[in-house]
Amino acid sequence: MSTPEPNTEDHGKPTYPLTGRNRVKRRHDRGFYDHETVHRILDASMMCHVSYVIDGQPYCTPTFFWREGSRLYWHGSSASRMLKNQTAHQRVCLTVAFLDSLVLARCGFNHSADYRAVMAFGNAYLVTDADEKERAGIAMVDRFFPDRTAGLRATTAQEMKATSFIAMEIEDASAKIRAKGVADDDEDYALPIYAERIPVKTVLGAPEPCPRLLPGVERPATLQAYRDGRLFEDALTEAYALQYPNG
Amino acid sequence: MSTPEPNTEDHGKPTYPLTGRNRVKRRHDRGFYDHETVHRILDASMMCHVSYVIDGQPYCTPTFFWREGSRLYWHGSSASRMLKNQTAHQRVCLTVAFLDSLVLARCGFNHSADYRAVMAFGNAYLVTDADEKERAGIAMVDRFFPDRTAGLRATTAQEMKATSFIAMEIEDASAKIRAKGVADDDEDYALPIYAERIPVKTVLGAPEPCPRLLPGVERPATLQAYRDGRLFEDALTEAYALQYPNG
Repeated sequence: MSTPEPNTEDHGKPTYPLTGRNRVKRRHDRGFYDHETVHRILDASMMCHVSYVIDGQPYCTPTFFWREGSRLYWHGSSASRMLKNQTAHQRVCLTVAFLDSLVLARCGFNHSADYRAVMAFGNAYLVTDADEKERAGIAMVDRFFPDRTAGLRATTAQEMKATSFIAMEIEDASAKIRAKGVADDDEDYALPIYAERIPVKTVLGAPEPCPRLLPGVERPATLQAYRDGRLFEDALTEAYALQYPNG
Repeated sequence: MSTPEPNTEDHGKPTYPLTGRNRVKRRHDRGFYDHETVHRILDASMMCHVSYVIDGQPYCTPTFFWREGSRLYWHGSSASRMLKNQTAHQRVCLTVAFLDSLVLARCGFNHSADYRAVMAFGNAYLVTDADEKERAGIAMVDRFFPDRTAGLRATTAQEMKATSFIAMEIEDASAKIRAKGVADDDEDYALPIYAERIPVKTVLGAPEPCPRLLPGVERPATLQAYRDGRLFEDALTEAYALQYPNG
């Protein structure tokens, strides 16, 4: 991927505010704060890690999530623990990370990786508004598989009651990107030591139809973004653009 | 993968203790606590997400890590923020997650995923013992690329000083595994709705030698675990077994 221009100042692009918690402290040349860079990384992922605190103990839960504007939603699988006994909001950090390559340098110190990561900070709340919850119940499927909900067996009131959604308005966020492969100390290039970059990619396998499909039930064309061998993040980015054409 | 037998009781296998924080509360049939299951998931991954708390604010940092027995190590890239001003230990949660497949069911509520995840809890500390730090400086490379350090330009005292390692003894941990594909409500199988499982896998690309290699410098045989198209986790598991033959 091409590395965007560092954007620690306002270049006219919408940008998340710089605060003490999102400022990239180490390797600050790798930090980006503009909406475009942050959102592009978020929208290429299905899974995030959500951190929250209970009685001083941090928890880090992997879960699915999606974005609407500057708001992030996730499924309340951890809601029972995370928001239990919380009448107020809960401070969280939601992180997405892609490992793009392993970087084997000529010394141990310069072994590294190319990666893209976003940390987003805010206060999480349980979605209780009936309309917002209904929209979230559709988006949790259709954001990944556009228009799929319309063809499914309808969600029952009981199922909806058993489902929790959590949302968080992004207050500040940062992206951190490294995309340069091997970067050794100048004098080390003269050494007869092998160095390389090993790409890492997450791809889809061949879809496996449910063995109990009724005769004649075909795979919908709307799932064509998900095909054997494709980069998972490309399928997710395409699905996002279909479902949220205004970004 | 085959799903191991749930192990909430003692079946003679070494097992992490069950506590309030690691007990899998939701879908407890998916929870495992034995060392073997927990370690197998940890050792198949290079990246983890570490959560820690500063002034009540949780942070979730993606980083590389490795295991020695029941101790986890990671690189101190976030040490400046994480352990700054901490004379005592710091409570952390270290999480590893694999997304194995997307599960598209016949209703929204049963959309799911096959996955493997581990949450490990403990107190993190800065590695200050000189011997332990030197071993960590080797392991941070050789755990992933067996025997590589011996062929590299030696680490300088200045580099070692600039490097921080953080360690954590696992106090309790849990693995959570789902590996069953589509699982619909019994009556929904009679509906003419398409359902499928889409495998997701993370693979290595073709290694890209550094363009500035000296003539005649060949790829070492010790890197053969890392080859084009291989599952990343298989390469990591193989490297782990080579570097830590006693588990």
